[in-house]
Amino acid sequence: MSILVVGSVAFDTLKTPYGERQKILGGAATYFSLSASYFTDVRVVAVVGEDFLPANEAVMNQRGVDTRGIQHVAGTTFHWTGEYGENINEAKTLNTELNVFERFEPQIPAEYGDTDFLFLANIDPVLQTRVRDAMPNVKLVGGDTMNYWISGHRANLDRMLKRVDVLLINDTEAKMLAGDNGLPRAARKVLAMGPRALVIKHGEYGATIFFRDGEFAGGHHPFRAPALPLDEVRDPTGAGDSFAGGFMGYIASQGEISRRVLKHAMFYGSVMGSFSVERFGTERLQSLSREEIDERFEIFRELTHLD
Amino acid sequence: MSILVVGSVAFDTLKTPYGERQKILGGAATYFSLSASYFTDVRVVAVVGEDFLPANEAVMNQRGVDTRGIQHVAGTTFHWTGEYGENINEAKTLNTELNVFERFEPQIPAEYGDTDFLFLANIDPVLQTRVRDAMPNVKLVGGDTMNYWISGHRANLDRMLKRVDVLLINDTEAKMLAGDNGLPRAARKVLAMGPRALVIKHGEYGATIFFRDGEFAGGHHPFRAPALPLDEVRDPTGAGDSFAGGFMGYIASQGEISRRVLKHAMFYGSVMGSFSVERFGTERLQSLSREEIDERFEIFRELTHLD
Repeated sequence: MSILVVGSVAFDTLKTPYGERQKILGGAATYFSLSASYFTDVRVVAVVGEDFLPANEAVMNQRGVDTRGIQHVAGTTFHWTGEYGENINEAKTLNTELNVFERFEPQIPAEYGDTDFLFLANIDPVLQTRVRDAMPNVKLVGGDTMNYWISGHRANLDRMLKRVDVLLINDTEAKMLAGDNGLPRAARKVLAMGPRALVIKHGEYGATIFFRDGEFAGGHHPFRAPALPLDEVRDPTGAGDSFAGGFMGYIASQGEISRRVLKHAMFYGSVMGSFSVERFGTERLQSLSREEIDERFEIFRELTHLD
Repeated sequence: MSILVVGSVAFDTLKTPYGERQKILGGAATYFSLSASYFTDVRVVAVVGEDFLPANEAVMNQRGVDTRGIQHVAGTTFHWTGEYGENINEAKTLNTELNVFERFEPQIPAEYGDTDFLFLANIDPVLQTRVRDAMPNVKLVGGDTMNYWISGHRANLDRMLKRVDVLLINDTEAKMLAGDNGLPRAARKVLAMGPRALVIKHGEYGATIFFRDGEFAGGHHPFRAPALPLDEVRDPTGAGDSFAGGFMGYIASQGEISRRVLKHAMFYGSVMGSFSVERFGTERLQSLSREEIDERFEIFRELTHLD
């Protein structure tokens, strides 16, 4: 099965307690597609500028990612500058140069028309809804958003929420979206806005999936995947998108969309997030093997299972 | 099997977003013993003043807790005043009146001489070590401490750490004790100080147990118990001590001290912590049934297990 991700391909300049990097390959769609590429066929729709070189695109192609949907336009690629301090889980944005991303108009290539799964990375919810409408036959739609859209573009976001099956956001975003500090109650409120399942990411403590009543038969309890306790989080950039790539990629690789599959997908999401943060940028995600991924899956099982 | 807890019995005056209470029964040894009482025979050594009434002690006796080790002395009982704000996980201490607790000299009644397990709640490590020395035949010793002893009484604490089998502390305390922000590395450093296992509590995200190499045969990976996602944490006071009571109480109820038992104990600890915070003070811990506890244990299993 194939999956299409629509979102940012960018350059990141960043500093962490372990070092700094200038204009390395980044962006939500980049992390997502590299991560998902270990599970299924991946296609990307994004926009880049003239400074985006063949060598940059080759990073994705080497993992088999279909980049025909990356539009090359005049101008400069989206460039994010940020740093992480003592609390490695909190990014401090120093500069956001949207550049060509500011006028991003996703175009779905005709060759992508038969795509089975769709992931709407964090972009304007108007664009997310437009892409969703252009792909009426996909089996499952995942989506991300952020505080900027929650607080300032609510009507557009509400329309988008009605069109995604699984929303992946963090604790703060879930509480903000629901206007409720009780996490399970916030989850129920968000599920009432549209999604059939909600993945709430807890940073270094993992993530919990909540299911809307009656959806994905097999029980109504939430399910939690831990994050791996790590000594060195060298660069947390892209951890959430790598999680989403492992989560959606695994689902797309399975013959059914069941609660059982979604639970395993939560573990694969956490596995890919844990790899991503071990090195700067996309470095670790470029050089994995499926064996390494499955070995780490077993470590997650040992970390959580009683018997 | 029986377990002895040595620690504070106190009154708490507290305010949370859900209300306030004046001078209600509290203290680490109180929460611990009520929690552990659902699993095994519990004995308490503590000190209280003249304001501690028979009705207060009866709360423990009604759960079968042996309170012959509670010393009644002239003066006033330890009284803690605090509040919890928007972030329900962070207590703000407004006032600490140690009162009779300031001169606490634990006395082990002769009848407690045959006790099988020992829990040293958070008190001066000099006293913890003294109690430990007075109970040379116990099968397993659990212990707690806090930032005050870590930063200001290190030599005494180091002596105590060599004498406990399982240390239970939170993330911040573990990192402070090890002088290391990498959690698994901090855990290894703390384990090198003495404990055979280390339980690091993550508040609303559960707790992880790390094992010293070669101890508790059956694998070297850590094990994580989640906390239950709750809508309403009415009063987090005593959550950590309730966790410790469920954890140690369950171990004491088993015929062996294995890695398997410790993993199940982590779940029972989380179960008891989740009950404790549902109501103010010790209210919820006074009225549970073993059936409710085991039902919630199964919810924890569903929350974490893939199949």
